[in-house]
Amino acid sequence: MAMTFAPAPADKATLEAGSGFTPRFDANGLITAVVVHAGDGAVLMLAHMNAEALSRTIETGIAHYWSRSRNSLWMKGETSGNIQRVVEMRTDCDQDAVLLRVEVGGDDATCHTGRRSCFYRVVETDGAGVRLSLLGDDTGAET
Amino acid sequence: MAMTFAPAPADKATLEAGSGFTPRFDANGLITAVVVHAGDGAVLMLAHMNAEALSRTIETGIAHYWSRSRNSLWMKGETSGNIQRVVEMRTDCDQDAVLLRVEVGGDDATCHTGRRSCFYRVVETDGAGVRLSLLGDDTGAET
Repeated sequence: MAMTFAPAPADKATLEAGSGFTPRFDANGLITAVVVHAGDGAVLMLAHMNAEALSRTIETGIAHYWSRSRNSLWMKGETSGNIQRVVEMRTDCDQDAVLLRVEVGGDDATCHTGRRSCFYRVVETDGAGVRLSLLGDDTGAET
Repeated sequence: MAMTFAPAPADKATLEAGSGFTPRFDANGLITAVVVHAGDGAVLMLAHMNAEALSRTIETGIAHYWSRSRNSLWMKGETSGNIQRVVEMRTDCDQDAVLLRVEVGGDDATCHTGRRSCFYRVVETDGAGVRLSLLGDDTGAET
């Protein structure tokens, strides 16, 4: 049974300082989730949740997301084994995002490329323009 | 002069493994930016950038965003003094988000409530439902 979330209060002080969890889903019914490793705080990925994904995440303690490309609910790691156990969930001042601190199952990969984090490339500039380069410790791990 | 960004390549391998920075702006012309402290990696805030904000951030090394509520370009810290000097910018596998590692000016606050991070409340569940509680180290700092 999916939980329901109350609508955001009109009063900004209540939204920002209150104890009511009233996630502000966008026009597509989504909030943004930033996912960090509970061990070292490394940013692993960014994803989106609809009310059902958020509800299931809270109820099961395992991260669920909404796939915008596949248009479907998605339990992270369902096929790869890299499930995310939520150690802590936070929300931000205006409650349109959540921050998940997770432990990662399987081989500790989060990115579908097999890497630990989806953020494996650095944006660099030089005289010729902007380009991406792999992080120094990137092993190019592909599963 | 704002830089222009090439459209994302149709080929997924090029998008995910190539050196071309081709940010995938959404239907509203925005990408998501996750902002972490360059010192300890703490997640400070989540914001959005249009092409101009991204361009100015790269050119100046100071974080600029697009305010969806004010519908305007915004240099973070312009009024508060809490500017963000970008130490490193990364992008993720499908290039629809950037991760900024920043040094924060002024009194090291990022949230408009005066706190260091916008993520100052934890989502907790008990028999009565879901509620928010302040992080243990929260000082409730309001500027």
